[in-house]
Amino acid sequence: MQQQIAVITLGIAELERSKHFYCTGFGWQPVFENHEIVFYQMNGLVLGTWLKNALDADTGRASQPAGAFALAHNVARQADVEPLMQQLLAAGGQLLRAALAPPHGGYCGYVADPDGHAWEIAWNPAWAIDAEGRVTFSL
Amino acid sequence: MQQQIAVITLGIAELERSKHFYCTGFGWQPVFENHEIVFYQMNGLVLGTWLKNALDADTGRASQPAGAFALAHNVARQADVEPLMQQLLAAGGQLLRAALAPPHGGYCGYVADPDGHAWEIAWNPAWAIDAEGRVTFSL
Repeated sequence: MQQQIAVITLGIAELERSKHFYCTGFGWQPVFENHEIVFYQMNGLVLGTWLKNALDADTGRASQPAGAFALAHNVARQADVEPLMQQLLAAGGQLLRAALAPPHGGYCGYVADPDGHAWEIAWNPAWAIDAEGRVTFSL
Repeated sequence: MQQQIAVITLGIAELERSKHFYCTGFGWQPVFENHEIVFYQMNGLVLGTWLKNALDADTGRASQPAGAFALAHNVARQADVEPLMQQLLAAGGQLLRAALAPPHGGYCGYVADPDGHAWEIAWNPAWAIDAEGRVTFSL
């Protein structure tokens, strides 16, 4: 069985507010959008942002906005963490935890997107990132 | 800015129960584990399963188990969807929605992992999956 995740779909309340965060905060470009969903082509998988009512109908349950999960975007240099966090806050994000240097190394903080989904912005010098954004675990 | 997600971290209640689901249900192998977290190397990103209390402490908020998001694992053939869903249910998953053929094409259903995180098991003939599991958006 492939160790493969094809899509991460986040439930959102408003398309435009979410798109502003991802396009202006992260600077990403959609690969597709319509009246209820925006897709972004990522590093070997697809990120979808879909109206929460539609996602709930599709999965068959009522979900909670701030779920027990976090996504991470890794940057190449420690000095990149705080400017990106500031850019995300300026684009409608909410600060969850200021950046700090955890005991196991690196430097990272958390910003929630406008729908409450947690994004860790991390510098992790041990984990290689290739030119296409693919990330490899290492100790 | 790279369109890149480095890690998806899921909050879990018990390591062994979660590991049974991912290792026996999906057949995946951890790349690292200790007393509070298990990491899996995926298709250009890393999946982490981390005790929810530790994740909540790290993100700085109390999260809800069944968050407004879904992960998808795509399979190569329509006939692969139901056997994998059955295997996930046998490994401690919970059926959210039986597999069906949606109007936009393909074939897919949803199973929650033992901590309530939704996984869509999908056959989507339009989206290419390469030998390393990397998935490309297409209409």
